[in-house]
Amino acid sequence: MKNIITITREFGSGGRELGKRLAESLGYKYYDKDIISRIIQKCGYDKRYIKSIDKISNDDFPYTVCRSFSLYSSHQKQATDLLVLEQKIIKELATKNNCVFVGRSTDLILRNYNCFNIFVYANTESKIARCKEKAQKNEINSDKEILKNIKLIDKSRKKHNLLLGSDGWGQKENYNLCINTTGFEIKSLVPSIENVTKIYFEEKK
Amino acid sequence: MKNIITITREFGSGGRELGKRLAESLGYKYYDKDIISRIIQKCGYDKRYIKSIDKISNDDFPYTVCRSFSLYSSHQKQATDLLVLEQKIIKELATKNNCVFVGRSTDLILRNYNCFNIFVYANTESKIARCKEKAQKNEINSDKEILKNIKLIDKSRKKHNLLLGSDGWGQKENYNLCINTTGFEIKSLVPSIENVTKIYFEEKK
Repeated sequence: MKNIITITREFGSGGRELGKRLAESLGYKYYDKDIISRIIQKCGYDKRYIKSIDKISNDDFPYTVCRSFSLYSSHQKQATDLLVLEQKIIKELATKNNCVFVGRSTDLILRNYNCFNIFVYANTESKIARCKEKAQKNEINSDKEILKNIKLIDKSRKKHNLLLGSDGWGQKENYNLCINTTGFEIKSLVPSIENVTKIYFEEKK
Repeated sequence: MKNIITITREFGSGGRELGKRLAESLGYKYYDKDIISRIIQKCGYDKRYIKSIDKISNDDFPYTVCRSFSLYSSHQKQATDLLVLEQKIIKELATKNNCVFVGRSTDLILRNYNCFNIFVYANTESKIARCKEKAQKNEINSDKEILKNIKLIDKSRKKHNLLLGSDGWGQKENYNLCINTTGFEIKSLVPSIENVTKIYFEEKK
């Protein structure tokens, strides 16, 4: 079985940067929402359609996948198909190479794989500061607006977890390591976390 | 300000061993309940009395320290004095040297100090296995009894936190790092965690 690291994170906590850096340092493949979307596109789905489906899944999608609902709209039916396809793709990727997955509830999708699950979080101040740092030049938002956005995105991530039947997003029991990035430069954390994952996979052999 | 590492842990998760090893590896002073009790004894308190106070504080102690309660028994009054003394001692120790504290709600007592707070946890199976490994030779308990004991002790630790006015025992937001020791030999984790704490203290300078 391949070594899989999944990263679930609060928006603005630096989880994606951590994932990218970890993958690079370990020589693992790296996958996040954008990359997985591109793979889905190659299966013949339009980019805009994939995006709109994601929005639907966050707003009003029934909390079960792979079961029939008589009141499904055709749009919802397509959304289900797409989510099932996404899971299939993620599982295939996890079978081929050691990899780092960021987001997409991969800790749940790959629960029967050889995973080390990380949750990345930070205090509000630190998340707002990181969002400002990463913002486009023409993008000026108040702290209040940024915080509202953080909460919205985290809520949609929780909902994505619910689609997979778990209401334990962010609860430490569901992860091997939870790291509060407040006060850290993300890159400085990489060697230590890399070591922990190596030991874990080694001891599991 | 000195560098302080506090370790809060679920019973049976290996938190104490981690604390001891971290202190040894970092060259920090190490303090836990037993050591702090010995310091209190040197202030003239009897060992058995200190133990009984701890039991009272877990069972029926009011959730406030340093405020007057007219219905206090003399025993409760002494318990308050002792808890205040314990906090005073912990703060003094934290001023003198870099140290690792295990338990005693030191993450709360030292909230205004230069602390890196760790929470150590594990799954039930792993905690029961560790308890069996550490048990005295003549001590034979069923898994059910061990689990009951684990729950009781964790409950009393939560209550000790409540004494300090916090109901956030074990909630990741209150810690810099939460580590699930399931699948790990504790000693294998030390170098990585040591590095993370070093970086943290370095970046805070």
